[in-house]
Amino acid sequence: MAKKFIISIDLGGTNLKVALLDLNCQIKDKEVLSTRSFLEKDDLILGIVHSVNRFIKYNNLNKAQILGVGLGLPGPIDAKNGIVHFFPNIPGWKEVKLRDILRKNLGLSVFIDNDAKLMSLAEFKMGAAKGFNNILCMTLGTGIGGGLIINSRLYRGFNNAAGEIGHLPINENGPDCNCGSSGCLEAYVGNNRIIAEAKKAFKRDISLEELSRLADKHNRIAMDVWNKAGRHLGFALAGVVNLLNLDAIVIGGGVAKAGNVLFDSIIKTLKNQAMSVQAKRVKILKAKLGNEAGLIGGAIMVKEGL
Amino acid sequence: MAKKFIISIDLGGTNLKVALLDLNCQIKDKEVLSTRSFLEKDDLILGIVHSVNRFIKYNNLNKAQILGVGLGLPGPIDAKNGIVHFFPNIPGWKEVKLRDILRKNLGLSVFIDNDAKLMSLAEFKMGAAKGFNNILCMTLGTGIGGGLIINSRLYRGFNNAAGEIGHLPINENGPDCNCGSSGCLEAYVGNNRIIAEAKKAFKRDISLEELSRLADKHNRIAMDVWNKAGRHLGFALAGVVNLLNLDAIVIGGGVAKAGNVLFDSIIKTLKNQAMSVQAKRVKILKAKLGNEAGLIGGAIMVKEGL
Repeated sequence: MAKKFIISIDLGGTNLKVALLDLNCQIKDKEVLSTRSFLEKDDLILGIVHSVNRFIKYNNLNKAQILGVGLGLPGPIDAKNGIVHFFPNIPGWKEVKLRDILRKNLGLSVFIDNDAKLMSLAEFKMGAAKGFNNILCMTLGTGIGGGLIINSRLYRGFNNAAGEIGHLPINENGPDCNCGSSGCLEAYVGNNRIIAEAKKAFKRDISLEELSRLADKHNRIAMDVWNKAGRHLGFALAGVVNLLNLDAIVIGGGVAKAGNVLFDSIIKTLKNQAMSVQAKRVKILKAKLGNEAGLIGGAIMVKEGL
Repeated sequence: MAKKFIISIDLGGTNLKVALLDLNCQIKDKEVLSTRSFLEKDDLILGIVHSVNRFIKYNNLNKAQILGVGLGLPGPIDAKNGIVHFFPNIPGWKEVKLRDILRKNLGLSVFIDNDAKLMSLAEFKMGAAKGFNNILCMTLGTGIGGGLIINSRLYRGFNNAAGEIGHLPINENGPDCNCGSSGCLEAYVGNNRIIAEAKKAFKRDISLEELSRLADKHNRIAMDVWNKAGRHLGFALAGVVNLLNLDAIVIGGGVAKAGNVLFDSIIKTLKNQAMSVQAKRVKILKAKLGNEAGLIGGAIMVKEGL
């Protein structure tokens, strides 16, 4: 019998990543396209279809060898019915039956879910949180994504919207948040907020990369900015740990590259704020799978038929 | 075959409730003792043993008719190994193997767990949250207890400490909390805190019962106190709902008797603060089983061998 493969797609606001994986969820081939080169929703769907077909052809495969196609998508998804509710950062998508459209166009099994959920699944099955059972995975970026593993299973909540750790509020009179409310964690530690804090501290424009480099060299001002971000994160996570008695929290995304100063600050605040039983058990871990977590998670979803 | 029964015990800082229930978890007989009449740990254990034996004798039962004994206890419990870690409000208990002690003394199956978890189980199986799948149950009192039902099962977390909604922090520079940290929900809406707020507003001592009665009669000052408590609760619950995409939150305990003014304020704040998808789905419900929730939950634990 011919060997089987999975095609996994990770759609972001900037990049559209497509990969071929074996049934061990190892990436065998990969391409990265620019999301913005597809102007309209239908172009983007066609781009995905063409990319999948190219992968099959150039790898000398036939469709019977493809177990399925898994897509991680940047917005709220009805995974059960295969519907994209909308994308906050890609216009033109509203209640799109993407799974059925792709199934019809590809003649393959298709599974779709939210990207943060797939990253969580990947870190749980093959990354930093392997061997743990109750886990929060979070990605720090412009927005803060999150996913929960509860009793060793991806936890979706009532309508697949669970995991929004970025919108756990941490101050009743806090700053406005992109979600329309105020005081949310994301309003304190989203990329733009950290860049603004750094600009204020350095009295000039400064990128996150430079801010991380400076902190690595023990620049006091840069370290203060990351320390402060870590305190907000640790405070929010203490509440989550008290509520969920997690055994691990995995942190990834661009900001997580700030390194030890950020992680030390998170851990110190969390251990200080959380209740002793809960604080003692939880491990704070750096994500292991980096940019490929979404692709790997998409393949796991297909493999396990989640 | 003789009919079977369950004996359930709900230990609180004030009362020790003991009940006989049938296998439908209906209470057939009940007694309430004063916890404080048992001065030492060993007296309390002996009191429980005597009470169980009395129930069996006076109801003309034999031990073979008792499926098991379930205990709900006011503190952190290792349910799996049957160990009481400690009781915050009853001195003298530290790492007590209560399940084994009672098994040996009674010659019956014994199950023990935290009281808030058993209340949650009861409200889920037979109370306000029947038919829902992902639920937070909370009891408002001197302390704030909580329990989570996730995917229709009692969720315990890594070491049975999940559910501590009272220690979800809501302000980074908030007041000190009994748990040793600060800014926790309980530091804003624990009974003593609400009584202190009311005293300040009315410029005299006032009980929670009077505060509720006055609010019922639309007394503006009393309503303001409850409104404020409801805003703190709604703010904290918005974060939980964003994170867990729950379908129901059940609120019980003494303070919940404040009635509509409190619930209206909770719901208004929560709907305002939470994300639209999550806010739309979640129902805020009053607990149905009142003081008997713990006893019923204890019986469910025995019946289902949880």
